Parts: sequence; C-alpha cells; structure tokens
Amino acid sequence: MEKKRKIINDPVFGFINIPDGLLYDIIQHPYFQRLNRIKQLGLSPYVYPGAQHTRMQHSLGAMHLMGEAVDQLRVAGHVISYEEELAVKACMLLHDIGHGPFSHTLEHSLVPNVSHEEISLLIMEKMNSEFKGKLDMAIEIFQNKYPRKFLHQLVSGQLDMDRLDYLSRDSFFCGVSEGIIGAARIIKMLNLHEGQLVVEAKGIYSIEKFLVARRLMYWQVYLHKTSVAAERMLINILKRAKELALQGVELFATPALHYFLYHKISLSDFSKSTKVFESFMKLDDADFFSAIKVWMNHEDFVLSLLCKSFINRRLFKVEVGSEAVDKSVQQNVLKRYMQRFNISMEEAQYLMGDSIVSTDTYSPKDENINILMKDGSIQDIAEVSDMLNIQVLTKKVSKHFFCYLKLED
Amino acid sequence: MEKKRKIINDPVFGFINIPDGLLYDIIQHPYFQRLNRIKQLGLSPYVYPGAQHTRMQHSLGAMHLMGEAVDQLRVAGHVISYEEELAVKACMLLHDIGHGPFSHTLEHSLVPNVSHEEISLLIMEKMNSEFKGKLDMAIEIFQNKYPRKFLHQLVSGQLDMDRLDYLSRDSFFCGVSEGIIGAARIIKMLNLHEGQLVVEAKGIYSIEKFLVARRLMYWQVYLHKTSVAAERMLINILKRAKELALQGVELFATPALHYFLYHKISLSDFSKSTKVFESFMKLDDADFFSAIKVWMNHEDFVLSLLCKSFINRRLFKVEVGSEAVDKSVQQNVLKRYMQRFNISMEEAQYLMGDSIVSTDTYSPKDENINILMKDGSIQDIAEVSDMLNIQVLTKKVSKHFFCYLKLED
Amino acid sequence: MEKKRKIINDPVFGFINIPDGLLYDIIQHPYFQRLNRIKQLGLSPYVYPGAQHTRMQHSLGAMHLMGEAVDQLRVAGHVISYEEELAVKACMLLHDIGHGPFSHTLEHSLVPNVSHEEISLLIMEKMNSEFKGKLDMAIEIFQNKYPRKFLHQLVSGQLDMDRLDYLSRDSFFCGVSEGIIGAARIIKMLNLHEGQLVVEAKGIYSIEKFLVARRLMYWQVYLHKTSVAAERMLINILKRAKELALQGVELFATPALHYFLYHKISLSDFSKSTKVFESFMKLDDADFFSAIKVWMNHEDFVLSLLCKSFINRRLFKVEVGSEAVDKSVQQNVLKRYMQRFNISMEEAQYLMGDSIVSTDTYSPKDENINILMKDGSIQDIAEVSDMLNIQVLTKKVSKHFFCYLKLED
Amino acid sequence: MEKKRKIINDPVFGFINIPDGLLYDIIQHPYFQRLNRIKQLGLSPYVYPGAQHTRMQHSLGAMHLMGEAVDQLRVAGHVISYEEELAVKACMLLHDIGHGPFSHTLEHSLVPNVSHEEISLLIMEKMNSEFKGKLDMAIEIFQNKYPRKFLHQLVSGQLDMDRLDYLSRDSFFCGVSEGIIGAARIIKMLNLHEGQLVVEAKGIYSIEKFLVARRLMYWQVYLHKTSVAAERMLINILKRAKELALQGVELFATPALHYFLYHKISLSDFSKSTKVFESFMKLDDADFFSAIKVWMNHEDFVLSLLCKSFINRRLFKVEVGSEAVDKSVQQNVLKRYMQRFNISMEEAQYLMGDSIVSTDTYSPKDENINILMKDGSIQDIAEVSDMLNIQVLTKKVSKHFFCYLKLED
Repeated sequence: MEKKRKIINDPVFGFINIPDGLLYDIIQHPYFQRLNRIKQLGLSPYVYPGAQHTRMQHSLGAMHLMGEAVDQLRVAGHVISYEEELAVKACMLLHDIGHGPFSHTLEHSLVPNVSHEEISLLIMEKMNSEFKGKLDMAIEIFQNKYPRKFLHQLVSGQLDMDRLDYLSRDSFFCGVSEGIIGAARIIKMLNLHEGQLVVEAKGIYSIEKFLVARRLMYWQVYLHKTSVAAERMLINILKRAKELALQGVELFATPALHYFLYHKISLSDFSKSTKVFESFMKLDDADFFSAIKVWMNHEDFVLSLLCKSFINRRLFKVEVGSEAVDKSVQQNVLKRYMQRFNISMEEAQYLMGDSIVSTDTYSPKDENINILMKDGSIQDIAEVSDMLNIQVLTKKVSKHFFCYLKLED
Repeated sequence: MEKKRKIINDPVFGFINIPDGLLYDIIQHPYFQRLNRIKQLGLSPYVYPGAQHTRMQHSLGAMHLMGEAVDQLRVAGHVISYEEELAVKACMLLHDIGHGPFSHTLEHSLVPNVSHEEISLLIMEKMNSEFKGKLDMAIEIFQNKYPRKFLHQLVSGQLDMDRLDYLSRDSFFCGVSEGIIGAARIIKMLNLHEGQLVVEAKGIYSIEKFLVARRLMYWQVYLHKTSVAAERMLINILKRAKELALQGVELFATPALHYFLYHKISLSDFSKSTKVFESFMKLDDADFFSAIKVWMNHEDFVLSLLCKSFINRRLFKVEVGSEAVDKSVQQNVLKRYMQRFNISMEEAQYLMGDSIVSTDTYSPKDENINILMKDGSIQDIAEVSDMLNIQVLTKKVSKHFFCYLKLED
Repeated sequence: MEKKRKIINDPVFGFINIPDGLLYDIIQHPYFQRLNRIKQLGLSPYVYPGAQHTRMQHSLGAMHLMGEAVDQLRVAGHVISYEEELAVKACMLLHDIGHGPFSHTLEHSLVPNVSHEEISLLIMEKMNSEFKGKLDMAIEIFQNKYPRKFLHQLVSGQLDMDRLDYLSRDSFFCGVSEGIIGAARIIKMLNLHEGQLVVEAKGIYSIEKFLVARRLMYWQVYLHKTSVAAERMLINILKRAKELALQGVELFATPALHYFLYHKISLSDFSKSTKVFESFMKLDDADFFSAIKVWMNHEDFVLSLLCKSFINRRLFKVEVGSEAVDKSVQQNVLKRYMQRFNISMEEAQYLMGDSIVSTDTYSPKDENINILMKDGSIQDIAEVSDMLNIQVLTKKVSKHFFCYLKLED
Repeated sequence: MEKKRKIINDPVFGFINIPDGLLYDIIQHPYFQRLNRIKQLGLSPYVYPGAQHTRMQHSLGAMHLMGEAVDQLRVAGHVISYEEELAVKACMLLHDIGHGPFSHTLEHSLVPNVSHEEISLLIMEKMNSEFKGKLDMAIEIFQNKYPRKFLHQLVSGQLDMDRLDYLSRDSFFCGVSEGIIGAARIIKMLNLHEGQLVVEAKGIYSIEKFLVARRLMYWQVYLHKTSVAAERMLINILKRAKELALQGVELFATPALHYFLYHKISLSDFSKSTKVFESFMKLDDADFFSAIKVWMNHEDFVLSLLCKSFINRRLFKVEVGSEAVDKSVQQNVLKRYMQRFNISMEEAQYLMGDSIVSTDTYSPKDENINILMKDGSIQDIAEVSDMLNIQVLTKKVSKHFFCYLKLED
C-alpha cells in the first residue's frame, strides 16, 4: 500500500506536511482540487501581476499555521487531543471550500445574496457523508457549536489562522512588503485564558503591527481602485449577460455557467437541487474568462464593448471620494454614452457604476483581541496599547468609487 | 495628458520600471496582456501549487534584468545607445509572445511542428506594422541580424536574460530554493570582448553554480515525473478530441479552440490565414480547462475518462527508466484496459504513453560561455573550471517516462 | 594601474557598487574602516544575537540608497549634477563617522556632552584636508549650507536615507520582520517641489507604515528593556572606572581608553588636542570589552561585581513604568545592597539606575513629511492621512526604566 | 519562580525555542555566552562586511535544526527518547565550545597543535561536573560512544546539523545566495536504516546541490584569497609577537592573551593547569584586536608595520597557483624587503607567507552519504547520482596562496 504522507512546497512557509489520512483525503477530493483553479485575489492580477495564487494554496497555508498554533498552545500547557487537532485542521482546510470564482462579484451578480460561508457548510456536510462522519467535529467547530470555543476562534476570529495566512500570502505574491505581519511571532504569543484565545502581553507590539498591516492591505491591495474598477466591470458584464439570457438571447458559456446565466438561483436551491450544486462545483475562473473572450464579439453592443475593455485591460476609470458623485454628474456621463454610442439610458448604465467600499480594521463590537497581562488579568488590545491608535483603527472608513468607461477622444 | 510611467510590483525583483513609451505600449497591447492568462509552467501547479506565475511576469522580469545588464555593460565601459537599449528591452519583452497555452503540449497535439519562436516573429512583425516600424531593431536583434551580436546573446544565448529570469522566478514560485541562481551576481560579471558577451574570471564559481542549478531545475521541476504525466495526459486528451472532431463528433469548445480542433493547421497557415492567427491569439489556459471540464461528461468513454482523471488529479502513473519499457509490458497494459473497459486497442492506447525527456545543461557545440581571464585571454568555461564537472554537465541525459492510467482494484 | 571599482556583498540590498575614486578612497580610509569594528546597535546582541552588524555596513547601505534616491529624482525630471551626486553620497558615507563605540553610553559617561555629529564634522574636515578639498560640497550638504536643501534632507530629515537604511538593516539582522519598511517603495515615491523633498500622494500608505514601523522598532529593539539594562550597566561600569581612575587607582586599558578614563574631556579638546582626537579614532568595541573582562578581577568590589555581571549576562533587572520609581523604594534597594555587600551608599548607587526613555515618532515641529497631492498642492502627512493615527504617532511617549542588580537568594 | 522558556530571534530560521532547563542553563553559562564574542568566520568581514555573526548564533541554529531532525526521524517512525533528544541537542549546542577566537589562526601560532575538538571535550567535562552529570549522554554522543550511532552522525558526519547550519548561515550573512542549501528540505529527507542515518531517494538532487554549494562556499568564502591573506597576516603578527615576548620584550595585552604570548602551551597544559584553561576561556576577538591596535605603535618595526597594515586593511597581496611560488622568486621578494626597510632576512620573512589550502568536498573514504533507494537497498550518493559529478567533487583540490606585503612605490 502506498504511503499517503505528502510534503507540499510552499513559497511562503517552505514546506507543508500532510501527514494524515483524513487531511490527505480532503486535499485529494475534487471539491478541494477545484480551489486550485480559483485565484485567491480574483482580479488583483490586473494591478499586481504576481497575485496569481489560488484558494487552495491559502487553505493549505492556513492549515499549516493551525498546526503551529496547536503546537504553541500545547507548549503553553494546554491539552488538545489528537482528534481536536485533526478536526480543527480539517475545518481550516475547508473554511473557504464554498468560494466560487470571483466570489464577491458573483454575490453581486449571478448568485445574489448567497454567501460563501453557507455554501461551505453545505459542501462540508456532503463531504462528511462521503467520509462517514469523520468531519463531524470539524463541522461543529466551523459552526461554533463545539464546547471549546478557542478552536473556533482559531478558525474564525480576530486572530484566526485564516487572516494570518492570507495577509502573509497576499503581501508575498503581490510583492508588497508592507503587508508582512510576522505570523510566526503572533502564533508564539498565543495562549488560553478561561478557554478563550488570548495574546501574551509581550505580543502587544506585534498585534498593533498586525492591525496596521491589515488596514494597509485593504487600501493598497484588496480595495485598490483598479481592482475595484475591474470588479465593477465584471459585475456589469455578468448583469448584462444575465439580462440578455433571461430575455432568451443566446450566449456562449460552459454548461455550468450557462445554468447560472439562464436561471434565477437562491440559497435554498443549492440544497434542494443537485443540478444547482453540481453546476456550482464545476465553476472556476476559466468558465468566466473563456466566455467573456467569446462575448467580445457578441452582437449586443454593450456586452461586447464591456468584454473587449475587460479582456484588453481598458478598465473603468475611477474617482474616489468620501461622498457619492453627484447625480447630475452621473446623468451627464450617461448622456455622453448615449450620444456617442447611440444607446438607451438603460444600456448606458452598464458603462458605469458606483461602489462603496469600507473597512473597519478592528471592531471590538464584533469580537475582542484579548491581552493576557503580566498580572494575570485580561484586557482589550484597544485599552492596553500605549500607542492608542487602535482606537483610530476601529474607525470605519468608507469611500465611494465612481467607475466609468473612459471615452477615447 | 496622462503620464505613462508605470511601476510594477514584482515579488521576485521588487519593482520593475516601465519608463518608456514604446515599452509601455507593448505591455498595454492585447497580445501582450494575453500572456497574463498563460501560466509560465503550464501544468506544474499539479506538483508545485505555487507555480501559478504567468508568461507576462516572466517577460517583464527578463526585461528588467536586461536593463541591469545594459547598465553593467555601460559601467564596464561599453557604449550602448538609447535606441539599442530600447530595442533589446523590447525584444526581451516580446521573446515569448508566440507562446500559446501549454505550449509544449500544443506542439505535440493541436499544432504539430509549429514552434513558438516562429509565431513570435510573426506577431512581432504584426505589432511592428501597428507601431510604424518602431520594432525594426528589436526584430533584427531577435533574428540575430543586428551587427552587434552581444545584444542577441543577451536575449538568447547561454547566459541570456531569459534564462536568468526563468530560473530565478520558477524556483521562487515553486518554493525550490535549490534553483536560486544569483542572477544579480552573474550580471555584475558580464563584459564584452571583441563584441561578444563574456564573463569576468571571478565569475567562474557563479557560472558553475548557474549550470548546476539549471540542471537540477530540469529534473526537479521542468521534467518532474508528475508534470510529465499530466502533460502526457493532456496530449492524449487533445489528440483524442481532435480525432473525434475530425470524425465530425460534436465537442464543446470556445470558437478559438474549436477552430484548432476541427482543422489541420501548419505554420504557413498562421501567416496566410487571419482566422488562424486571430484564433491563436485568443487561446489561453482558460479555453482548455473550460472545455476539458465539459468533456468530463462527453459520451466518448475514453475522452470522458481522461478528462475526469485530469481534472480530479488522478494523473497517470509513471515509471522512469533509462530505457523504454518493453513492448510486451505495454501490450499487457493495453490488454488490461481493453478487458476492463471493453474498448478497442486504439482506444486503449490513449490511456498510456511514453515520453522521452532529456537535457544537456551545457552544450558547447551550440554556443560557449566565454570567460575573460585576467591575462585578457578568452576561454570556455568547460576548460577553466577547476571543478571540472562542467564536462559532466554537458553529458546529455535522457530518461524514458512510461505513463499509464492506474486501474483501481 | 589597478582598477578601483568595488562590489560589496550586502545581505540586505544584495550588491553595493563603489564605482568612484572619491567614494572608494573614503571607504579605504582608516577612519572609515574603523566603523567596521563598531556595532551599529551596541549592546542589542544581548537581546538579538543576530544584531552584530556594524556602522560600516549601515553607512554603505545608506550610500547605496542615496544612489537610488538620486536616480529616482532624475527619473522624475530633476537635474542633479554628477558633482552633487558624488557629494551627497560622500556625505551619506560619512554621516556617522563621528560615532564612537557604544555611542550613547559614552555620551553619558566618558565623553559627556560631546555629540557624535560634532565629531563627525571634525573628522570630515580632517579628511577634506587630506583629500584636498574634494569633500567641500559634502560638508556643505552635511551642514545644510548647500543651496539645494533637498540634498541635506536626503541625508538628514524625516525621510532620509539614514533612517531608511537603519530601519531596514536593524530589523533584518535582529530577525524582526515587523520593522521592514519597504525602503525601495518609499524611494520610488520621492519627488521635489519648490526645491524641497516631497512624497507623491500614492505613497501615503507607505509613509504611514514607515512611521508605525519606526515606532515599533523603538520599543521592540532600540529601547528594549534588556538593552536599556545592559546600557545602564555599562554606563555605571564606566562611571565607576572613571571615578577610580581620577582617584589614581590603576586600571587595565588600552592606551586610547586609558586616556579617556584618566582625563576629563570636552568637545573643544577634540579640535585642540591631536592626542584626544587620535585616541578617539582608535577606540572601538574591543577596547571596552577587553578592559571590562580584565576588570572582572579588579580589587574594587563594585567594579568587579558589575563587570562580572555584564560579561556573564546577569544584567540588571528592569521595572518599566510611566513614572519614576518612588524614592523610598530606591532607598530600600540601596540599603539591601549596603547590607548584603557591606558597601557604602555611594558604592551601592552603582548597582542601580534610572533611565528615562522616550520617543516621538513624528514630530512635525521639527520637520514635516510633505505630500505632493494630485492637485499639485503640498500637505503634511499628518493632515492627509485618512488613517489619522499620525497624530497619535506624534505623541511623545516616555517611560521610566528602573534598573537594579538582582540579588541571588 | 521565573519561567525559563526563551524564544530567540534568529534572522536565518525565524525563531529558536529554548524550552528546557538543561539547554537553557547551558546557554546562560559564561563559557557559552563567550561564543557571542567570537565571530564565526573570523576575518571574513574584511571581504564580506555582513559576516559578523558569532559562534553562539551558529550553535543555537545547529541546535534548532537538530530539533527538526529529531522531529523528522520520529515522523518517519523511529523512537527517540526525550533523554536522547535533550542529549543530542546539548551536544550540538556544545560542539564548538572549544573554539577560541580566530581558531584556525591560533592553531598555527599561539597554541600550536591543539585542536578545538579536544578543548571542547575538556570544557564539556568541566560543565558536566557543574551540572552533576546531566551531560553524560551528550558527551557519549560527542565521542561517538553512544550505541545509537545516528545521533553522533547528526552532530558530526557528512550531513550533520553543524554543516547544515553553517552553510545556510554563512551564505546568509555574507550575502552569497549561491551557498543556500535548503537545509529544511534535506532534513525532511532524513531517515534511518539499520541504525545509520540515510537519505531517502527523492533527496538525491538536494544532496547533489548541497555538495556543490558546500564546495563553492569553500572557494568563494572560506578560502577567499583576501581572507587567506588576512589570516596569514594575523598568523605572522602573532608569531612575531610571541617571538618578541619569549625574548622578554614588553607587549601590551590583556592578561589572558599575555599568558599565551609569554608561555609555550601544549594540549596537556589545558587539563593540568587551571591558569591555562581559565585564560583560554577569557580570550575572545577583542583581546586580539585591542592588542594589535596598540602594537601599531610598537617599537619593533616588523610588528608595527604588520599591525598597521592589518588594522587599516592594507592586506597582503596574494598569488594563487596550483604549485608553490618558486624559491628564487620568494628570495627576490625577501631581498626587496630587506633593502627597502633595512631589516634582516628573518624579519623580512614575516612580511610574506605561503598557505596551502585544499578541500575535498565529499570524501567517501571518511564517511558515506547513504541513499535509501526505493527498493529498500542502500547506496552511496556517489554511485546513484546520475549527475555523476559527485565523483568529481571528491577530487581533492589544492591551491597555493603566496601572500606578501605590497610595497608602495
């Protein structure tokens, strides 16, 4: 019998060990392999050409960090059983399994109001049947129903392994050194206090740095105006395509994408209809790019224009401001499109769009980062940071991105 | 007027400057942007999940190194005009412009006997028309018709910027530190002697290391048996699909891929037929993956089986040897497939394949790496290396990879 | 004649080119070579064993970054003459030439009230005589007398190459990834506006990150309590030694150190007395460590105790607080030492000490970081940062470090 | 009671954990702390300014890798007891404890024919008394008397953690990427076969790379001609000083160095005389540099000339060849010195020297690197490497370095 142990080379962390049967089987599963065809950062390669890394790499990296966190908590004197270790690692591997390609875009176009977390849970349950219940505890942890709450916090919380991996990984592949967070150091500072995840006092500076780096990554990468513009363009393309489809216009697409173009889908359809579920599990970045390239020559003027601009990287221009662009300005832009291209107001609206993006880096309402002080007490990072700027970080910053097609003179 | 200067973040080299009109225009061209949808290492992500980097990143990196090489030669006292600098950088940017997706695979299936170098030249000439002759000198350098031969050597030679970039980049993204070559150090050692590129004597160790690293990258990455298996599987898929297509069987495909499946193409068609050329320029990785995912459910048993195995990463098993597997062994394997699946001999042959891979790391017959000795004389690296193993490196090593579908019991 | 071009390997920046006669001659000068025997971070290796890098490495690195800054400003369209480039690089190379070993400590013990900047100027002038005036412009820039003020700002200002190098280098050798600042990116954002150094608007995030990283480096490295304790111990050792010396007690020391122990020195002595100047130029880390090791066996109990503790890394304990430790607490500590060791109050005081450390990361009173907005206006970073925490960073934070010898039970 | 767990920041490996009482106590011991005042590469900073790292850092790094090797062997299914783990780590920490400053130089000058391994053993035994026998097993492993031989092989063998650390570390601090060996990957390939350390077959390429990198590091760093010249100069300085000392001439020196200058010492003196032992344990780099700086002004012309040249980096010139420089050439050089400086033949000989340096990278006579083939058999790397150049690597290469003082015209 072949040994299943696997060592995966990872440019960020060096090596990732897959020692175990269950973890190995998850990774081999088609649902998981599919994540290697979905880019972690969607359209960011338009800005950062290096950002080609996939959701599979991120999931593997987060699982790797989870192993280090478990080791650290054991060194700090806490008992974590082998079953718990396996479950929390499996949970970490699967936490993003429900992502589709260009996830955020899809939620605003083809599959409105269906969150990837809900789909993740559905998929985990399907896999759990296949694996004969071996994912029971992983699912409990995912749903925060497992009694030892810190395990869920390690998967999804202010200092979860998800964030520690993606901030490290995204900054690495984008070539943005400002995003480096020192995940290893933060993990070395983790501890438990009354069953909750805490950070030892000497880790305060690292946490401050983590919050600042995270905030900067938002503005420099995740919400970079060119990425937002590309995403807005893709949303408009998919909305236009879906509108045409529902009118009965023929559109080239893989059968899986075709299904989502020609049907209205809600979350309940995913559990009720095998067709919906299986179609979704076939979607990856290639379905979209292969279709959009074909649509460049579609007879619908608007669709064709948007697709040509998208593929050839003539992305929407963006104006960023703290308030929305005035309605009258938008009207003027629309009129110019209508005149130039001889199109209707409805059609012209696909050539622009307004995105509001916002981020509050650290919102203590949701969940705290708790610091274990040297006197044994627990305090919120926002209180003990003598740097004080944590309070600033919690301030929600919103920006309006007004995106519009540039007209060549 | 908008300023065109661009700074591109590159995880490998930090920043890449695009200061110039012509270079900027090349990069914005749809033909070049297309390279960002084609992975540099094709199917290597099956082995190295980090290896998602694209041909565009490589071309930008090679151009960046070219800038450093030009600087170095000027520091060493050689005059290189601004026009020459621009031309050799443009040439470097465009050297891989003719690559299609999974290039090596295509050359063995859909587009037999058409080399990417020949297509590159065609594309450069088309772009040169658009750019009104601004690429004249770049094309001369590419074809080695420009009188100053070292410029061609920097683009394509034993120590060209192409190799310096791809060895650095591929090892970086694969997470294989063994492939690191110290490109910066090698460039610092470059000089000219009677118009030919030479390496200063103190660079001998770096060259030795470069040759060893290159050889190791071949066996560890480029010819990794799992990659070879995946490539063989893709070749068989495309051959089967083309066979079915030529029989008139219907196959899902983007129009561009459809064209190559349903027509026999030779090199001359590329220049004669706009349809061939334009179809080729639309192909990228997505056309193949989107089609293969659909073919998983094709009614042709062999095509469907291969596509399912390919997508779900149940790749061919491989036996590596210094000689081909015995014909009788192959026959036995074929018979098992025929019995198990109730298929014909012809069909069974798609489930296996034999690949011969070979590499001679340094072949002084082709071209020398010349060392500028301290006494001013020029000698071949193979002669002056007191390490002597350069001679070993020149030995051509061939291996037979016998690939076959594993039968579940 | 031998060519003088030199390439220096630098772990932080890769390669540092020394192409020029004057720069080469500075580096070969004994005054400069001496910087390779003085650690950049003095006693930090007690905390960060990797922090062995020297002031010479830092000076070379800062000169290297200066070259990149000059390149960038030229790319941005500003004329900088060859003479100015050479002068500002020479100035950068020499900016720390006046540092003695454990500079901060010396200023609090052997050479009170003599700043290293003043000594730097003296040394530059001596070297300028040797170099027959070739350093004239460098000295003008150093003293901010050269008309083009941005050159001085590049040497000494809120965003000078000094800081960009030392933050990068110190974090690198300490192994503290939090301190990484992305010097290359900041340099790419530099520009001039009305002759002053400014940062382009898109660099705001990088500047925010720079200020945060700098502040964290202060608390995590430069003012780490163990370093402060070691420094306080060294100050007390040198004060005790000097007191004994001035009483006529015999102390082992190199002649150079001996001179500073047995004489009271003020700044004017440096320019008046060749003996003072030449003795200072012979001092490096080794003079201190070689003497202190001998003093471990000195008959003076207090000196011997401190030296043994220092060499064997039984450093002062530290209590950190926002206010000074109460006088009565200090008195109690002193009494315990007096009883335990049968020593006088004066002697006991050498076994403890109080250090006030403080940092204001960004003080706009001193000098601004000016941002060149997209509309062409100039604004202070503290005003345009929508992160707002710059204001927090400007808050001066002071801490009291009460250091004392730990008594074994 | 204070917790003793310690985390050390290491620029090469990130973090090094010191979880255990014994290991912690070793690191706190003055004998071990002394290693942080002795540079790992002695005089290499004359060539590579970054190479300031100390023997302490190396010892900590090697211990860290030992922890990873133990983990790996356990993952591979081998039982290693906690006591064995502790002992082999302690052994690794202490393997270089007997090194003095400029170790190789000392063995050729002040302390002839006394190897650092022998002193290491003496020191370990002294420490073992202090630690009440807790080092018994570590010493057995060091002497290869412990029955499980692979533990000694991990400390001292063809693939020991010593080499894996120093090759990684030296290349890191020198800024020489060519020396990077991928220690983590090699460790992941370790296994045991009949109680001997072996490497799994898939690790062959990594081993080939390791051997090549090691060989290159020899020529590029360890035996760099400028380092050899500096070392030869230091040997001559110390020989001259010792000759003067034995003639009764007064020389400034710390008491520890003074003792070694004014006495003839053999290995047996180390165990017989506490004075010898304790003096040796006080020596570090500072004793030598502080004395040599003073000797720059010594009345002995030869000593003074050598010391000035050494401190001010006017190092011996070097001629490298495969054979020794002809006697008559050497005589001519000597005569020029005699005439120029009006010195005797004996004195003139201190101004030059001949060093033979050699390295055989892999000598299978000493010990093999054994590969565990997929069929379960064991073969020597030199036999299974299809690269074949391992045989070349085993060839002993010797070079003659003729060093001599350059006369200014």
